[in-house]
Amino acid sequence: MRDRTAVREEAPMTDVQSSHRTRIPRDREHDYTDEMAHKRQSFVAERTGADLEHVRNYSFDPAVLPGNVENFTGVAQVPIGLAGPLTVRGEHAQGDFFVPLATTEGTLVASYNRGMRLIGECGGVKTTVVDDHMQRAPAFMLPDALQAREFGRWVDEHLDEIRAAAEATTRSGKLTYIGQHQIGPLRYLRVNYTTGDAAGQNMTGKATLAACEWIKANHPDHPRYVLSGAIDTDKKHSQINMLMTRGKRVVAEVTIPDEVLQRITGVTTRQLFEYRQIGMAGAFMSGAAYNGAHAANGLTAMFIATGQDVANVAESHSGVTYAQLLDNGDYYWSTTLTSLIVATYGGGTGLPTQRECLEILGCYGSGKVNKFAEICAGVVLAGDISLTSAILAGDWVTSHDALGRNR
Amino acid sequence: MRDRTAVREEAPMTDVQSSHRTRIPRDREHDYTDEMAHKRQSFVAERTGADLEHVRNYSFDPAVLPGNVENFTGVAQVPIGLAGPLTVRGEHAQGDFFVPLATTEGTLVASYNRGMRLIGECGGVKTTVVDDHMQRAPAFMLPDALQAREFGRWVDEHLDEIRAAAEATTRSGKLTYIGQHQIGPLRYLRVNYTTGDAAGQNMTGKATLAACEWIKANHPDHPRYVLSGAIDTDKKHSQINMLMTRGKRVVAEVTIPDEVLQRITGVTTRQLFEYRQIGMAGAFMSGAAYNGAHAANGLTAMFIATGQDVANVAESHSGVTYAQLLDNGDYYWSTTLTSLIVATYGGGTGLPTQRECLEILGCYGSGKVNKFAEICAGVVLAGDISLTSAILAGDWVTSHDALGRNR
Amino acid sequence: MRDRTAVREEAPMTDVQSSHRTRIPRDREHDYTDEMAHKRQSFVAERTGADLEHVRNYSFDPAVLPGNVENFTGVAQVPIGLAGPLTVRGEHAQGDFFVPLATTEGTLVASYNRGMRLIGECGGVKTTVVDDHMQRAPAFMLPDALQAREFGRWVDEHLDEIRAAAEATTRSGKLTYIGQHQIGPLRYLRVNYTTGDAAGQNMTGKATLAACEWIKANHPDHPRYVLSGAIDTDKKHSQINMLMTRGKRVVAEVTIPDEVLQRITGVTTRQLFEYRQIGMAGAFMSGAAYNGAHAANGLTAMFIATGQDVANVAESHSGVTYAQLLDNGDYYWSTTLTSLIVATYGGGTGLPTQRECLEILGCYGSGKVNKFAEICAGVVLAGDISLTSAILAGDWVTSHDALGRNR
Amino acid sequence: MRDRTAVREEAPMTDVQSSHRTRIPRDREHDYTDEMAHKRQSFVAERTGADLEHVRNYSFDPAVLPGNVENFTGVAQVPIGLAGPLTVRGEHAQGDFFVPLATTEGTLVASYNRGMRLIGECGGVKTTVVDDHMQRAPAFMLPDALQAREFGRWVDEHLDEIRAAAEATTRSGKLTYIGQHQIGPLRYLRVNYTTGDAAGQNMTGKATLAACEWIKANHPDHPRYVLSGAIDTDKKHSQINMLMTRGKRVVAEVTIPDEVLQRITGVTTRQLFEYRQIGMAGAFMSGAAYNGAHAANGLTAMFIATGQDVANVAESHSGVTYAQLLDNGDYYWSTTLTSLIVATYGGGTGLPTQRECLEILGCYGSGKVNKFAEICAGVVLAGDISLTSAILAGDWVTSHDALGRNR
Repeated sequence: MRDRTAVREEAPMTDVQSSHRTRIPRDREHDYTDEMAHKRQSFVAERTGADLEHVRNYSFDPAVLPGNVENFTGVAQVPIGLAGPLTVRGEHAQGDFFVPLATTEGTLVASYNRGMRLIGECGGVKTTVVDDHMQRAPAFMLPDALQAREFGRWVDEHLDEIRAAAEATTRSGKLTYIGQHQIGPLRYLRVNYTTGDAAGQNMTGKATLAACEWIKANHPDHPRYVLSGAIDTDKKHSQINMLMTRGKRVVAEVTIPDEVLQRITGVTTRQLFEYRQIGMAGAFMSGAAYNGAHAANGLTAMFIATGQDVANVAESHSGVTYAQLLDNGDYYWSTTLTSLIVATYGGGTGLPTQRECLEILGCYGSGKVNKFAEICAGVVLAGDISLTSAILAGDWVTSHDALGRNR
Repeated sequence: MRDRTAVREEAPMTDVQSSHRTRIPRDREHDYTDEMAHKRQSFVAERTGADLEHVRNYSFDPAVLPGNVENFTGVAQVPIGLAGPLTVRGEHAQGDFFVPLATTEGTLVASYNRGMRLIGECGGVKTTVVDDHMQRAPAFMLPDALQAREFGRWVDEHLDEIRAAAEATTRSGKLTYIGQHQIGPLRYLRVNYTTGDAAGQNMTGKATLAACEWIKANHPDHPRYVLSGAIDTDKKHSQINMLMTRGKRVVAEVTIPDEVLQRITGVTTRQLFEYRQIGMAGAFMSGAAYNGAHAANGLTAMFIATGQDVANVAESHSGVTYAQLLDNGDYYWSTTLTSLIVATYGGGTGLPTQRECLEILGCYGSGKVNKFAEICAGVVLAGDISLTSAILAGDWVTSHDALGRNR
Repeated sequence: MRDRTAVREEAPMTDVQSSHRTRIPRDREHDYTDEMAHKRQSFVAERTGADLEHVRNYSFDPAVLPGNVENFTGVAQVPIGLAGPLTVRGEHAQGDFFVPLATTEGTLVASYNRGMRLIGECGGVKTTVVDDHMQRAPAFMLPDALQAREFGRWVDEHLDEIRAAAEATTRSGKLTYIGQHQIGPLRYLRVNYTTGDAAGQNMTGKATLAACEWIKANHPDHPRYVLSGAIDTDKKHSQINMLMTRGKRVVAEVTIPDEVLQRITGVTTRQLFEYRQIGMAGAFMSGAAYNGAHAANGLTAMFIATGQDVANVAESHSGVTYAQLLDNGDYYWSTTLTSLIVATYGGGTGLPTQRECLEILGCYGSGKVNKFAEICAGVVLAGDISLTSAILAGDWVTSHDALGRNR
Repeated sequence: MRDRTAVREEAPMTDVQSSHRTRIPRDREHDYTDEMAHKRQSFVAERTGADLEHVRNYSFDPAVLPGNVENFTGVAQVPIGLAGPLTVRGEHAQGDFFVPLATTEGTLVASYNRGMRLIGECGGVKTTVVDDHMQRAPAFMLPDALQAREFGRWVDEHLDEIRAAAEATTRSGKLTYIGQHQIGPLRYLRVNYTTGDAAGQNMTGKATLAACEWIKANHPDHPRYVLSGAIDTDKKHSQINMLMTRGKRVVAEVTIPDEVLQRITGVTTRQLFEYRQIGMAGAFMSGAAYNGAHAANGLTAMFIATGQDVANVAESHSGVTYAQLLDNGDYYWSTTLTSLIVATYGGGTGLPTQRECLEILGCYGSGKVNKFAEICAGVVLAGDISLTSAILAGDWVTSHDALGRNR
């Protein structure tokens, strides 16, 4: 959460470093300039000996940065590899997409690329956004559990007014429903919104603050609250996210003919399905956030490239896969990302390289977020197919017996 | 996982895109050149209309990139803000550090900066790496549970030879222990290593492959296996990571005088502790991966800046906080990151801007990984203090009654 | 789940044991008689040498048993100890209660008794049922994710008709809401009911079967389904239970003066609160179903005594505690049982000793289930206070320094 | 936990009920007599109006009860149905077993019985105890994380002495290993034991207390500790139990020919396997403690019948199933109970009806606990097969298309 109280509190602080300690150069009036960046580069060089020859090589005017970073000093240059085309047959994303992946991990682009090729030979990946909920979850503190329960009913009865208070703070945010969970005398409200093309964490924070203030002012007991009772669960994986969705819940599906899988990966669909049983058991026992292969890899690379809030990988990498081996030997494979937090507007999406990468996907700007979410899910599925097959090919193809045959 | 079987399998694939589909330009001999990057930029522009004016503005020779990316096309320029100094009193990190944070999320740098200032006024953050385990976790398939159990004993008895086989593949990796978990006839081996200054996922993959091959060749039944049974749990949060450590387990500790907290954040230590009880309950009920505020934010920004495998945020953001309100009103606050995966060598750490950012921290190269891990933990604690206080300051200071006073 | 399809399927089976194997004596017409029980006792004695001298000593007519057990052979005699009085100040339970605890674990009754005494000195335990949901959760299989999503909307739009179909099968069950969760092409419906004084697993199974059949008949695609998609989650602990409630969600609260705690347990409220921080961290790291001490002990003993479905301890022992140390040194302690499954009607509640034990509590029959649920929560809190204090008293009182004092 | 400090603390308490409140009759010298039981029955009748006609009908001398219950008042008579024979081909359990199930839930005995018949037609269930660990898990409080880490090393170095101190307190308990988990300055030691034929919670509590006292006396810093840091996790399900085992880890396995399954249940192995994929996804999303059908039902009924600590159902119902559909259409099905806590000695196992039920199974007394554990696992598997098939038969057999066929 980066709510505005934080901004207000924090703004002056860099200046007031206690005098005996070195201060990062700062100029409140003209902070986003090449000159200030240069001062900070020199400062760093002087203090630490690090020569920022490449960090200083950004290609844009720092004046675009307010709202994206403070104490701007330069840029990280993260290599972008291109993968694709990924053929997507979604509701919002339709056609072939070349996917910019910003990463420093070798084979990642190649592996996703291979998965995309396989998907192409299967006619593309079907994608669907099936749910959409961003939330802020305050906790109200009542004197006891009974009053907390009654408070919850009062909230239900005043939903329209609460919604009005919340939505007055935002153009695009819409309050959809308020989930309620009680512990002792605490009533946690998980306030759910749709947030248009923005990821919406700030929007929902602001709207929920307004909702809470309305509640506090209008409920006869004026109950105290904290804006986050930790069940939002912002910037963290959680089971509640997996169950109730955070951001977009997106499904990617493909049916893979055995012949295609064998030709491209050297693995049969039957081997894949047998291995799946092992992986499901392992993921369940481990208490894992995802029972597929590596959603985090593709998502992170796309997030960096396209100006997403990359920390949301914490939530976004979570999901549930579901597969069936069909009678004809085809393999039906679905991946459901349960808490994919993405934006095509706001945050870092408008920064220079980030915007260009969104444009490669035809996803820059308003009305594009579901399209982008669908492509993300397709990319994840491509990468999971490729890596899973690679794990199997390493050992299994040299094995004459398939799993469990001679039991 | 990016194991070498994947590389072998995937290398040729970009070339064999089926002929009727557009191919991303590729030249196997000279792929990492400005010319090839330029071809791909033109290709993208032609296919998608996206002008990569900024993406093309990298400042280094693409020849440095093999092993880091395929189909190199340009760079994401992610703004870096400088926070600090963060005063660290660790085993490996000692002194004041200026921390490069690559982010596009406004207030993040400012908020972490505020937390660092507060920590400075408390005399710095104490940091300790308390555990260090990277793993690859194959699953061996035995005919039944009894044989799987006996297989497990055999593995214990042959640990020295298995270790020798594994360690023969690596200079810096050391096999420390093999955890065993059985489901039905499957024996999952969670092979643990220390990996020097590398994150070690590849190293442990290679070493474990050698270990498995040794087992398969030498065990009388030559049991089949898969290199990952999904309990590693690579690129995913999991409870097993939180319990058994993945990467570094690092603790950051600080004791905050009430006066300091109030002066900088407007919140009392008593309010903080009372709020903590609410957050603990919420995090527990939610099944959250972390019961602090937002480890993912600071870690992601550091990871992008310093060439970490950013997808590891999925695992690294997990942890457990522990606090006590002391008799004198001071607040003891610890954050334990249970699966922090970091490197100061290998992967993206040697790329131009990434290396410079590691150098700002004095963490580039061999022998530096624990120092870097300690700084990471300190940064997380700084950010959690700042955000948590901001959440409280929004409402609580205007409240005349502290939590639960009149119950 | 013990749905009626199971009954239908299973009824004939005992008779058709293959001829080469010994059959348990069975007489379909007069199965619930002393004679049949005696035949089975003799059968057992002959086959296994076990003399069922005590098992055969039941005090009631087996004719009361149909619907409760098959192949009736005798009884387990589980010792009942009496604890109390427990002073309850609930909505439904008010007054002093003597609690029958059926257990074979020494000190259990004594420890709960001590907790009840302490609660009595605090003026009693406040109890509240804050939520009430029993569910059956079918999964509908649609051709793809898009159709599954649209199916979900159709269900929302036809909620009234679905409710009518479900409620036509039951007098007391009321369908409250249908939670929806999608994975791939599967739409899981978590159908929630209130079930009067019955636990309601059978009732909701039957009602949901009717609802599903209505859906299947009326939805244009006549989608297939399974009656349980495993998210009910019957007879298992789960995070979804903790979040969304299964059975009753009940809170027990007490505020303990430091003097009372010290006098009865030898522990201070401050020690308790400091220890709590350690336990919260441990429970969170462990992925525990409960972050209190031992809800399962008291609940199990009450469940056996009062004819509950004791297997529901799997779900019922789960919960979240929440506490605060107040300014005056008092300790506010709440326990929220999130999935307490209880009945005062149906199942085993009408059997002879079971009914007597419910009568001790004034909880037999219709209109009593919330009263019983409240007493259960109060008992749990009593036991947790006593055991937690005992753990601390063992070590802490001999320790001159309280936790964290000299840090 | 029912450790001895609790006993010591709690013994006097019943007598000191404050004078203004009614006291349960108690006679410290002759508490376990018919006379005292009768006094309490009269007391209850007088206070509550409940006539304990059946509760009073126990068939044994109360003098057998010390150590099993306090304030003895009578018995719960829980009906026992007989199921079987269950054919077990285990290491320790071999042959046909008739299983006493104490329950009040209709169809439970019949359903388990059907599963046992099916298993019989498959040649029996293979069972194996693959791990055995009972634990008590203290938390040591060190001044900071670094000292906690060093303390952990000291513990490792002094394992022999610690073991000696622990084992001096018990004849049958053997300390096997100490797992260590650190949070902040807390070092949690999960001390693992084998405990012979006892469940061992008390034994390990006592032994660990001795170990802790030895550590406290001998470590140079004499660190404070609490005997339970909540990661044991006694009387609660937890992920750490599932991963690291609590009690016995037992596997039951059977391979079911398609013809047998169809004949007995009306379901094909292919339908079973397809349904399994849905259930696995649902259980994973729900954060369930078990991904089979209903382990809790059979275990609870066995536990009540045989004098187990029934509250351990909280832990014991947890597990992981693993299955494969073999090429020939046979269905390989395994259930792994990861934390089965059972005893054939101590606790309630020696009480009259309880002992008789153990004798039915040939499991009373020393050297029998693994046999009993194996039978438990076999029973669970029987019940899961029966219920899962019943769920499918309800809908699926009327469905012309098998799952996912026409996708």
